[in-house]
Amino acid sequence: MALALSAAVAAPAMAQLDVEDQIETRQSAFTFAAWNMGKIKAQAIDGSVAYNEQQMLAAANAIASVANSGLGSLFGPGTANDKNDNTKLLPVFFDKPEKAREVAIGFAQAATKLQEVAANGGGKSALAAQFSEVGKSCKACHDEFRAE
Amino acid sequence: MALALSAAVAAPAMAQLDVEDQIETRQSAFTFAAWNMGKIKAQAIDGSVAYNEQQMLAAANAIASVANSGLGSLFGPGTANDKNDNTKLLPVFFDKPEKAREVAIGFAQAATKLQEVAANGGGKSALAAQFSEVGKSCKACHDEFRAE
Repeated sequence: MALALSAAVAAPAMAQLDVEDQIETRQSAFTFAAWNMGKIKAQAIDGSVAYNEQQMLAAANAIASVANSGLGSLFGPGTANDKNDNTKLLPVFFDKPEKAREVAIGFAQAATKLQEVAANGGGKSALAAQFSEVGKSCKACHDEFRAE
Repeated sequence: MALALSAAVAAPAMAQLDVEDQIETRQSAFTFAAWNMGKIKAQAIDGSVAYNEQQMLAAANAIASVANSGLGSLFGPGTANDKNDNTKLLPVFFDKPEKAREVAIGFAQAATKLQEVAANGGGKSALAAQFSEVGKSCKACHDEFRAE
């Protein structure tokens, strides 16, 4: 899996988007992922909505598809907040490529496991536990690379 | 599959978002899907980027995860362009629930098949053919419900 992830992170799947489109697209990807995280939170953590295995699988598929979509290509030069006002990405992102790679792979691995738990009908508490791991992987990147 | 899709379309997976968040979230979902459609176009249609089976599967997974994410819950009352300036959704959407359901299911079915073609290693021309079907399902909704 590490090799597969490495390829997915590294190789651009299409021509590079311009700076504004990179920022808009990555924000869209994270908004879509966050919406789906919210569904799992509602059903598996808060219990504010009845637990629905099929909806949890759809949500986990969505989060995993974002994490494995090659987001790295949306973090090109000039897309940090020293050069653009529409993003919270800190310029230090470009000084720490190994750390950036590490948090991207952490997100992909945690989200892929979330998808596996949901697909295998792991149940509410297993899903809640892995949801927490995905949340940690989000936070690892935010703490390092995202402005307050 | 029709029944499964029906449930996914019908049942809200979390508390209803407010109007602005519904609009922003659905636009994010479509932006994320469009980015991934662009990858398939580049590799399977235009040939402007080398064909990469793994990236095509990741892209197809992303598009299918959007189509199967229960987008209907992001098209609540008050989210058309007669009541909100941030959307192109035409008010006629709310007068034609059967047509809305039909185009949503059309998108879900076409995108799910795209994912199957990619997962089964159907190859470039099979993927290109199904990409065209997904494009038609996008257009079916745009023609009916989206302002120019």
